Amino acid sequence: MKKAIVLLSGGLDSATTAAIAKAEGFEVYALSFDYGQRHSRELESARAVAKSLGAAGHLVVEFDMRGIGGSALTDDIEVPLDRETDEMAGGIPVTYVPARNTIFLSFALGYAEALGAFDIFIGVSAVDYSGYPDCRPEFLASFEQTANLATKAGVEGTGRFSIHAPLVDLSKADTIRRGLELGVDYSLTWSCYLGGERPCGRCDSCKLRLAGFAGAGATDPLDYT
Amino acid sequence: MKKAIVLLSGGLDSATTAAIAKAEGFEVYALSFDYGQRHSRELESARAVAKSLGAAGHLVVEFDMRGIGGSALTDDIEVPLDRETDEMAGGIPVTYVPARNTIFLSFALGYAEALGAFDIFIGVSAVDYSGYPDCRPEFLASFEQTANLATKAGVEGTGRFSIHAPLVDLSKADTIRRGLELGVDYSLTWSCYLGGERPCGRCDSCKLRLAGFAGAGATDPLDYT
Repeated sequence: MKKAIVLLSGGLDSATTAAIAKAEGFEVYALSFDYGQRHSRELESARAVAKSLGAAGHLVVEFDMRGIGGSALTDDIEVPLDRETDEMAGGIPVTYVPARNTIFLSFALGYAEALGAFDIFIGVSAVDYSGYPDCRPEFLASFEQTANLATKAGVEGTGRFSIHAPLVDLSKADTIRRGLELGVDYSLTWSCYLGGERPCGRCDSCKLRLAGFAGAGATDPLDYT
Repeated sequence: MKKAIVLLSGGLDSATTAAIAKAEGFEVYALSFDYGQRHSRELESARAVAKSLGAAGHLVVEFDMRGIGGSALTDDIEVPLDRETDEMAGGIPVTYVPARNTIFLSFALGYAEALGAFDIFIGVSAVDYSGYPDCRPEFLASFEQTANLATKAGVEGTGRFSIHAPLVDLSKADTIRRGLELGVDYSLTWSCYLGGERPCGRCDSCKLRLAGFAGAGATDPLDYT
């Protein structure tokens, strides 16, 4: 069975991505990060999702991005609430974390190389996306090239790393439809940027999620504030 | 004054690189990592070097690569001692840490973006190097391209990130000559992989350093075991 590293935040997209990796026949090694995020509540969800999928491994790497700063997700910058769809589409929001997906994929590459895996799954989407530069296909293609130049396996030619982004062309509604087909239990997932007891329903992430469930003709199993 | 992020391990190469960045007129923001390395002694050296250079900032990011494994620098794999030059040149050694420079550069990118810097210095050399794939110019060029696709500044066109590797074509002896011209205090640096009270003089890193000083016609100020 081929091993795959799946970046698992505990959100809806990464849970669906992990289910897709499993359905494609990969043995799933989940990788999550405790990076001082405001919504560290999502890590509990990541653990629950990894368990429900029968992941072969789940590594949580801790580091602190608060020393770096520059984001509403890690600093004392306010998370915007109640924005309309066109506002969300206008430019890169304050919830952007500098170089986050580059850092996450780099750790995934290290974990892959140490495990002898060559497949890395990431649940980014270029549709309905929040304006993050590191969710675009051109970024992922460039990272894949870098990965193959960075590593022992790449140099020795024993394998070629692939970055899989199965949601990249899917809307949030399509993602949810696909996840429901695969039996993803969305009650285990967490999307809210704020990270209280219940999701706020008002941040960009909650709004995209709720619109996605509505678009898929399904009901979000989470209980909102 | 333009800001630059300098990856500063506390070793000879990164200390020289930081001095070069300063000589080129950059305001130096040093970045070091406490990643569970066997030779964490080098972090004390990084602090001393940053101070001696008058760095404007010094961020130490902590994370644990021992969960990832796969290297003699972070695991219970023995560091090879007393290898001859041709042995060192033969393939990628066990001290290779999977994806290490990709991870380090990714954090540097995040730090740069948060600070509004576009220049990142790394002290790798493709000459006299230890066979690490992530020290090669083709890797650095690819990472630079990825960096410009990954970031807000790259997407918005407010600047272009550059990865500077001023030692890439220098032998260890040339590096030491350049550092001595710039007044680098090599007594503050640490290269040994083992990390005891005194450098061992027997691991690849010590041997390359000692041969470098000999080649430069200079004396290493460190006191070896």
